[in-house]
Amino acid sequence: MAAGIPVRQGVTKTPRQAMDTTRDGALAAAAAVRAGEITAVELVQAALDRIAEFEPQVAAWTHLDPELALERAREADERRRRGEPTGPLHGVPVGIKDIIDTADLPTECGTVLHAGRRPARDAAIIATLREAGAIILGKTVTTELAVYAPGNTRNPHNYERTPGGSSSGSAAAVAAYMVPLAVGSQTNGSVIRPASYCGVYGFKPSFGRISRHGVLEISRPLDTLGVFARDLEDLALLSDTLMVYDQRDPDMRPLARPGISAIMGAAPPVEPRLAFIRAPAWERAEQTTKDAFRELCEHLGDRVDMVDLPRMFDEALDTHRIIMEADLAKNTAKLYQDGATQLSERLREMIESGQRVLATEYNTARERSGEYAAIINELMNDYDAILTPAATGEAPGYETTGDPAFCTIWSLCGVPSLNLPILQGPAGMPLGAQLVAAKGDDARLFRTARWLVESLQ
Amino acid sequence: MAAGIPVRQGVTKTPRQAMDTTRDGALAAAAAVRAGEITAVELVQAALDRIAEFEPQVAAWTHLDPELALERAREADERRRRGEPTGPLHGVPVGIKDIIDTADLPTECGTVLHAGRRPARDAAIIATLREAGAIILGKTVTTELAVYAPGNTRNPHNYERTPGGSSSGSAAAVAAYMVPLAVGSQTNGSVIRPASYCGVYGFKPSFGRISRHGVLEISRPLDTLGVFARDLEDLALLSDTLMVYDQRDPDMRPLARPGISAIMGAAPPVEPRLAFIRAPAWERAEQTTKDAFRELCEHLGDRVDMVDLPRMFDEALDTHRIIMEADLAKNTAKLYQDGATQLSERLREMIESGQRVLATEYNTARERSGEYAAIINELMNDYDAILTPAATGEAPGYETTGDPAFCTIWSLCGVPSLNLPILQGPAGMPLGAQLVAAKGDDARLFRTARWLVESLQ
Repeated sequence: MAAGIPVRQGVTKTPRQAMDTTRDGALAAAAAVRAGEITAVELVQAALDRIAEFEPQVAAWTHLDPELALERAREADERRRRGEPTGPLHGVPVGIKDIIDTADLPTECGTVLHAGRRPARDAAIIATLREAGAIILGKTVTTELAVYAPGNTRNPHNYERTPGGSSSGSAAAVAAYMVPLAVGSQTNGSVIRPASYCGVYGFKPSFGRISRHGVLEISRPLDTLGVFARDLEDLALLSDTLMVYDQRDPDMRPLARPGISAIMGAAPPVEPRLAFIRAPAWERAEQTTKDAFRELCEHLGDRVDMVDLPRMFDEALDTHRIIMEADLAKNTAKLYQDGATQLSERLREMIESGQRVLATEYNTARERSGEYAAIINELMNDYDAILTPAATGEAPGYETTGDPAFCTIWSLCGVPSLNLPILQGPAGMPLGAQLVAAKGDDARLFRTARWLVESLQ
Repeated sequence: MAAGIPVRQGVTKTPRQAMDTTRDGALAAAAAVRAGEITAVELVQAALDRIAEFEPQVAAWTHLDPELALERAREADERRRRGEPTGPLHGVPVGIKDIIDTADLPTECGTVLHAGRRPARDAAIIATLREAGAIILGKTVTTELAVYAPGNTRNPHNYERTPGGSSSGSAAAVAAYMVPLAVGSQTNGSVIRPASYCGVYGFKPSFGRISRHGVLEISRPLDTLGVFARDLEDLALLSDTLMVYDQRDPDMRPLARPGISAIMGAAPPVEPRLAFIRAPAWERAEQTTKDAFRELCEHLGDRVDMVDLPRMFDEALDTHRIIMEADLAKNTAKLYQDGATQLSERLREMIESGQRVLATEYNTARERSGEYAAIINELMNDYDAILTPAATGEAPGYETTGDPAFCTIWSLCGVPSLNLPILQGPAGMPLGAQLVAAKGDDARLFRTARWLVESLQ
């Protein structure tokens, strides 16, 4: 480890005291439940206790029903006592972004226009989680309609700062040791950015690998569910659980499960090679971010090459904006018609901008995003992963959710990306390194990430 | 066979004299070549002789290079003589719509703006055809950019009438016994309608089953290559050859070949049931068309139910138009910019209409087309096929290419459809019955078609 690199050891330390029952995370908790060393009720009660202590400051949750969660935990314990098969997450509490439908808790998508909305059915991934034995602890705060306008969640490392968004509550709840696992979504930078700000691991899989059936649609070609955890093993466990084919998501293909945990457990056959990419938003990065990555690259030495993307990527942020805004306008048409004045000004402006996009512009943007993806996937013939910042710098103040610019290309291209909470900024706040792989190479991305994290220890 | 049903027996009879060497079609020709009873050169020469006789009246071809075709035939004969493996179409001449790239013949797409255009490479299906041993005889006339403005092709049954479009030359060349097989394309009604007008069998497969790599793009979610032949067996042979996965067409999925010829050869396990659908364009059908289908349904008796589509299908033609025009505008942007005045007025109006379509309208139309497809595919749980007219009536005069309205829904839904040339109109011109199946049920559609044709004999 080169001197002077501001590497964060391990995970978030604020709030400083890890909850005893989950300090080793989801994998250990599930193993303890299976071994009869702890009950699901004890795990859920510990999570609720932790939430009772820190929720007033962090505000990660929008719907919590402690009695319901405890009841589900009692049922899980009862099933285990009866000798029924237990899933890989049996008894483990999980937080769910409040754009994902749950039949037993409201789903309000961060807008008063959906106040009191109660879906009739669980989203596909909720059913999958329940089958895996997980306890849906509650719904976490999202920005307004999973776009920019912040909820009231604060960064557990510094309550004056944002946790990022749009998956604000999911990232903060994991960072604050309220739950070991949470689910979020990314249309632009809504998983990787809050993971970076909150100092947790975050994963946005390849496009089309986690079902979005029963999830608020912002932009079909961009929306991707993602996950948060405090270590790579937990992140892999949750990813392996959720990455199953569902024909109700029209963008999924019947592919085999990626087997992330197994592949990550093996050593890379040769030492990985990384491409350091500054992306089209490098000028937006803070100087300390640039410095941290320069040092990180120096430490990696000949394992990393500096790669510049072709000039056509200069239009990538515009390309993404055209698609996202036009899709947002379509998908919010009824909300806008019924209650435009109850939308934030920024969201209203985005919708109105999207209403003006022409079909020819939209489809040209879609084609360009296909060309970008082809170039990125081609580049990955020569590298195991792309290394790039996860965000422009540390979390800014809580009146915004920060700048997603370092995530935009990877969302647009549908390639998998990981946030590794291995750096810190000048104020001691977390700063993430982002690793990106070719589409479909999700498992190898985790293996490369493990190699990178271990090489810094 | 009920009395009075104006069923056409067999295939087109005008021009009346079948070419000796191909009178039994592609299957027989290929068998004769394999058996050494005829050479590819003889087949090609016979086709060229036939063309020399009727091309002045029919004008089906836009690029013919007799010497090149004969040279390819000599090569095919040489390969056979050397004992190299022969493909299923070894030595069989095929006509290719002039929107499909060929490296050894021009590809001008029916517009002076592409005059002299010589693609560097063959389209995927041209390579597939060459591998199967087929001889690309020449390029057939297309309407302007495969849309409406007619070329100079005439209907072989009556030179004052249109062969239909946009695959005008392919349908006419097969009808005139110039070639046993031809390839066309359908974005709205460009295979089924000319097949109906020309009295030949036509097949538009399920969307995404024949590669469009190297083919003029009009509308990616609609464009479908299709085929023409004078009997179902030949049509199946060509379809089986062309329906192979090609990852360069982004809308193809790696599916097994449908095995149409084999499945069509088996008897249906139970007598098929048909749904007679009048489609949203019934009021455009001529009275004699309505009468012919009423009698056909009476003949089929309890094998056919009259089914009305939900009212939402009333918007299907508009939905299709929005998608097709907006995509056309995008895909012709450069042509329009460089040479709008050299486009026909009708095409220019369509492009300009497409330029004004909003992304929200386009994407709403795309979603609605998905809803239509779900309803049609659901309906097919109860029926083997939909029965509906292929066109509003007989071929009109050659100044238009006729009305595609009876094909629009099936193009929009991406479901397979067949034209069966089994009826005739009041002027003695051909009139097709269209059969439609659920998406992916291409082989069963042929089997049902064979049953229907045999039940009328």
